[in-house]
Amino acid sequence: MTVTSPPALLDRLRAQAPLVQCLTNYVSMDLAANLLNAAGASPAMVHDEREAAEMAGLASAVVVNIGTLSPPWVTGMHAAASVAAERGIPWVLDPVAVGATAYRRETAAALMELRPTVVRANASEVVALATATGAGRGVDATHESTAVVDDAKALAASAGSVVVVSGATDVVTDGERVVLVRGGDPRMPMISALGCSATALVAACCAVADDPVEGSVAAMAMLAVAGERAGALAAGPGTLRAHLLDELAALDSGRLATADVR
Amino acid sequence: MTVTSPPALLDRLRAQAPLVQCLTNYVSMDLAANLLNAAGASPAMVHDEREAAEMAGLASAVVVNIGTLSPPWVTGMHAAASVAAERGIPWVLDPVAVGATAYRRETAAALMELRPTVVRANASEVVALATATGAGRGVDATHESTAVVDDAKALAASAGSVVVVSGATDVVTDGERVVLVRGGDPRMPMISALGCSATALVAACCAVADDPVEGSVAAMAMLAVAGERAGALAAGPGTLRAHLLDELAALDSGRLATADVR
Amino acid sequence: MTVTSPPALLDRLRAQAPLVQCLTNYVSMDLAANLLNAAGASPAMVHDEREAAEMAGLASAVVVNIGTLSPPWVTGMHAAASVAAERGIPWVLDPVAVGATAYRRETAAALMELRPTVVRANASEVVALATATGAGRGVDATHESTAVVDDAKALAASAGSVVVVSGATDVVTDGERVVLVRGGDPRMPMISALGCSATALVAACCAVADDPVEGSVAAMAMLAVAGERAGALAAGPGTLRAHLLDELAALDSGRLATADVR
Repeated sequence: MTVTSPPALLDRLRAQAPLVQCLTNYVSMDLAANLLNAAGASPAMVHDEREAAEMAGLASAVVVNIGTLSPPWVTGMHAAASVAAERGIPWVLDPVAVGATAYRRETAAALMELRPTVVRANASEVVALATATGAGRGVDATHESTAVVDDAKALAASAGSVVVVSGATDVVTDGERVVLVRGGDPRMPMISALGCSATALVAACCAVADDPVEGSVAAMAMLAVAGERAGALAAGPGTLRAHLLDELAALDSGRLATADVR
Repeated sequence: MTVTSPPALLDRLRAQAPLVQCLTNYVSMDLAANLLNAAGASPAMVHDEREAAEMAGLASAVVVNIGTLSPPWVTGMHAAASVAAERGIPWVLDPVAVGATAYRRETAAALMELRPTVVRANASEVVALATATGAGRGVDATHESTAVVDDAKALAASAGSVVVVSGATDVVTDGERVVLVRGGDPRMPMISALGCSATALVAACCAVADDPVEGSVAAMAMLAVAGERAGALAAGPGTLRAHLLDELAALDSGRLATADVR
Repeated sequence: MTVTSPPALLDRLRAQAPLVQCLTNYVSMDLAANLLNAAGASPAMVHDEREAAEMAGLASAVVVNIGTLSPPWVTGMHAAASVAAERGIPWVLDPVAVGATAYRRETAAALMELRPTVVRANASEVVALATATGAGRGVDATHESTAVVDDAKALAASAGSVVVVSGATDVVTDGERVVLVRGGDPRMPMISALGCSATALVAACCAVADDPVEGSVAAMAMLAVAGERAGALAAGPGTLRAHLLDELAALDSGRLATADVR
């Protein structure tokens, strides 16, 4: 299928530098902020109920990530997501390890009722959300992304959200269209919170896209191209992280045009 | 103007390894601690009201950063800053994104009443504090530092604090004296929480300085020289961060004597 | 003395990829997760009382680190450690800066009653725990690890825990046996939260070991060998961190067999 080209969205991202409010887990705070900065967006980590809704009103996109949950954060997540939903601001849910505990399942279910623009997850999380069963054992994918395309489509259709399943091949679907993004480096899953940071980049790209499928595809394509280039320079996950940020910052529309998007 | 030389303060910092208590935001936890360690100080991230005041009594300097606010943290900030103010321990306020929300404005205003030794901020935050208007839209500077010297001087004079405005040129003022520090690398703003970490280094240097202008100038000069050297080795913001820590650790009084301080 | 070889435990770690639940401080979130991933374990940062016990029941090991304490976290720590203790899941306590404040001393004392499988600390923390006096001033070691072997043995014997004292030479003891691990790089203490991350790796190795002395020795040997190799590539603490993660990921049983363990 055809989507608005990732290179065009990268140019818009750089020109507009959208403010992305992140209510995200403690592990991802550093990398998500740096990755947004490297890509050209402007991160704002604001979570408390006293200001979460107000900040959402100023933001161009909102990220809600349930990785390190606690009640005050859940309250802030609902406040920010509600404002985003009301005002048509794109908001992206990352249901980290949703299958692992009852608290995660309940929190994710309640957030899904606010209809996220995009759900960005790994394969096991998509399966857990789609089947509402506790299939997950933690934050790691136990399924291949391409093995869960049907679950992703079903989840997208029932939720009214775009679903992004990250993996060796990234799957983006709105329930009908399915776009596959290939690339990256096989050591990328060893970088903790890179999935969470991809979620933040999806939000940033959706802030400047006409359509959340386009935004999601552009974000995953950016990571795929930057990750592949970084992989050529890296000796392992530690140097891969540093080079990935360098390559994201150096990414231009010419390089991004080489992305394998189908 | 003349200030006690940054090289002399670097030597003192290394000799004394001051304990710097940081009540700082989640994004900056990692970098601020590593940057303090690299420079020769000893970080202690302690925030809860059950121990914040006790720790402040043991510390040589205290950092209060409002980046990821919530009520329990604000309580701890007041406890630590009050002890610091009572005992003459230098404490440094970083009013992150103070213009963005009412909660930030109120929190910063209440902390300003405890008269921070130094306020370290970007240009838009200085303007927001100085005018008490909500001019900021987030954590990024929307003004040039050198364009807000008058606001910085006014804020310093009214608050009784030294004000440090970081930017391509750093501005340090106590309301009368104005010192400019130049250097660094243009990609440094892409390193998330580097400003917050600069705040922590200002606190560390004030712990060993006779005067907070001197301490602030030394901290910004250390970052300017280390940043410039790191920039020569870096391909982007990811490798810049690693090299910056290396260069800070390798900094000596000879190298620091080359700092552009006026 | 003889212990089951670190190389054999590394192979088990890679084969089993144990799920390690970490209730750890904000500074260590990023590095501990990345270090566990690099070594071959699977991190899960889950702390709130609503899910901490449930997650502990799913985990192969639990880490409790008191670096950035607050009451909700302490509640979660007790919930997770209690489940671990009841079910015989290895759990490791990191009593960060235990000597510094009353809150830390009380929290650590209450957690010690749940009899951690291993206590991983620096020398001053071991002394503080062993003597129940407030000898520490912060998170940094003020004693040599080898100077506190008697305190470590006494603490291990009285607590019924294995004690790991990290330092230039790591000391592992169950109160009778004493194993020394040498290696690493002298700049490793400049990497913030590397000790906390070592605690997490001890937990991961204990999850696959028959005995917590063996697990602890294997973890410290892995860091010693990877750290020494990383040190040969690093120009300072920033690049050392990246190379350390690379070298941990690249570690194999052949390289680990060169560890200096006695």
